Amino acid sequence: MELLQQTLTHIAAGDQNAATQAQDRLDSLTKPPGSLGILEEIAKKLAAIQGNPRPKLGVKVVMLMAGDHGVVAEGVSAFPQEVTSQMVLNILNQGAAINVLSTHVGAKVVVTDVGVIGKAVEHPHLNVRKIREGTRNMAKEAAMTEEEAISAIEVGIELVNKEIDQGATMIATGEMGIGNTTPSSAILAVFSGVDIDLITGRGTGIDESSLHNKRRVIREALLVNKPDPHRPLDVLAKVGGLEIAALTGVILGAAARQVPVVLDGFISSAAALVAYKLKEECVDFMFASHLSQEPGHKIALDYMGLRPMLYLDLRLGEGTGAVLAFNLLEAAVKIINQMATFEQAGVSNKD
Amino acid sequence: MELLQQTLTHIAAGDQNAATQAQDRLDSLTKPPGSLGILEEIAKKLAAIQGNPRPKLGVKVVMLMAGDHGVVAEGVSAFPQEVTSQMVLNILNQGAAINVLSTHVGAKVVVTDVGVIGKAVEHPHLNVRKIREGTRNMAKEAAMTEEEAISAIEVGIELVNKEIDQGATMIATGEMGIGNTTPSSAILAVFSGVDIDLITGRGTGIDESSLHNKRRVIREALLVNKPDPHRPLDVLAKVGGLEIAALTGVILGAAARQVPVVLDGFISSAAALVAYKLKEECVDFMFASHLSQEPGHKIALDYMGLRPMLYLDLRLGEGTGAVLAFNLLEAAVKIINQMATFEQAGVSNKD
Repeated sequence: MELLQQTLTHIAAGDQNAATQAQDRLDSLTKPPGSLGILEEIAKKLAAIQGNPRPKLGVKVVMLMAGDHGVVAEGVSAFPQEVTSQMVLNILNQGAAINVLSTHVGAKVVVTDVGVIGKAVEHPHLNVRKIREGTRNMAKEAAMTEEEAISAIEVGIELVNKEIDQGATMIATGEMGIGNTTPSSAILAVFSGVDIDLITGRGTGIDESSLHNKRRVIREALLVNKPDPHRPLDVLAKVGGLEIAALTGVILGAAARQVPVVLDGFISSAAALVAYKLKEECVDFMFASHLSQEPGHKIALDYMGLRPMLYLDLRLGEGTGAVLAFNLLEAAVKIINQMATFEQAGVSNKD
Repeated sequence: MELLQQTLTHIAAGDQNAATQAQDRLDSLTKPPGSLGILEEIAKKLAAIQGNPRPKLGVKVVMLMAGDHGVVAEGVSAFPQEVTSQMVLNILNQGAAINVLSTHVGAKVVVTDVGVIGKAVEHPHLNVRKIREGTRNMAKEAAMTEEEAISAIEVGIELVNKEIDQGATMIATGEMGIGNTTPSSAILAVFSGVDIDLITGRGTGIDESSLHNKRRVIREALLVNKPDPHRPLDVLAKVGGLEIAALTGVILGAAARQVPVVLDGFISSAAALVAYKLKEECVDFMFASHLSQEPGHKIALDYMGLRPMLYLDLRLGEGTGAVLAFNLLEAAVKIINQMATFEQAGVSNKD
């Protein structure tokens, strides 16, 4: 709890003075003002984050958190639960989509088992930080105790701090956890008040009757647990997940260190919502990468006032959308640092 | 005319057999089927283009065509006409947004003056292929003769062929031409039949009264010239532009050589529409990169059944959105070639 409290204390809004200076610089470059749209917004936001009107980026890291979900017993997922552990091994062996895309953009993947069922996969690159072997079935009882949720958050804070200490300048959130769109939908329902039918989607690809069942399960979880929307840790513990909690920690940790954090899809947005509810200023450090097929994703991003950049109909997780957006953050930084000004280039400005 | 006719003859639909094999491969990879969304669609489309279920990509080239527009005399642009020439020099000197972004993604920029007003900029890397010094004012008369339009198309075909001969495997379209959203809007209005008020936007950033004037100018151009929607070359000549025609040639040339062509923004989409109207199979070789702020852009892409990937509110042109999408095509190719299969990784498939 101490690490979480300290971290929350260190999170402050971005530097608006640096953002204003970045805007002036952007307006001096050889292009119509504002014509690079979101790339200009990214450059300004990074200026505010780093307190530097000419932001720089370097080492990129994906924090991939894995955990299992007791609620899978209710039949909410298209894939069997052992896939979480199998995919952790596949990721460690470089076979998954996140490996291919991270290599493509030059990012490192840090994999952490924060609560997968069974014995941890044996691999030298796996961080084994199991809080417990999967959450409890939230349709029957609280998924975690508040202490367990806080411990998982603190794993995220601790590990992201370690990466930042080693030079990370950009963090992406990623996850692996069969069944984790169900707790993510429950978290969003509690905070947003939006109807569960509008929030809940097909996850990895369940059919119509399974979708009805998933909605019923989420309703039950909310009825049984009565999470308090004004107490983010209560919501996270009762209807969240271990990997979701760890990602909340990653986001808080990055924000406290003034490092940008690129959110992946729906599960990451649920983790971000918890962070946002714990400390609103967090949002100054977040970037939404893509808009997924999961209907709750847009609702969660809108709630925090974030706009996605990539429309690729992804619904895989792992951090796949977030790492693709790394390329856009780097593009924005190069634009503000490398383009010629009207004066340098001898180009006439607007009439 | 002969080169254009030959090129049109060589354009055929993509290889659906290769696309089907690509789909089988994608479904064998360790992810829920279809969960990489548009990235999977890109991989399949590239398989069809190359006639290879395991497509490959290498050298990336942006074909940037520059030209001026007589219609600028009607006050349709926020920037003075000399900016076209000044920006051509800025691009050749590596100072523009397209240079920064092309360097970022590792693409080469090929700059061609196909009809800028005045003496061509002196620079060893500029292709000088002026058909005429700017188009005529389309509000008063035809912008070009049909022979001029065909000559400009053939410049595009010839130059893209040269790049493909030298190893280009991916082409992006880019342009520079003060005033060129006006002819692009006119072209789209003729082919789509959509109201000019819905199509026409603010280009580089004109105010409300200039926007009204721009709409009036486009209406006049259509009244004066009466372009025949069933004769694409008539439309292009009467209300098009030299750089737009050259880009039509780039697209046709790439399609004839079975090379993917990534469209930039609204002006590129107008050039693509002309290519599509000349030979519908062209669309099998096109990728839409981003959705710009210009309202006609979505209308043009919808007309051809293309879906943009990047939502960045760009309105700059030059090829800036297209080169950012190169990264996504490369990501798709790596996914289909490098991910592990369920069998290789020992991961359980869907129930």
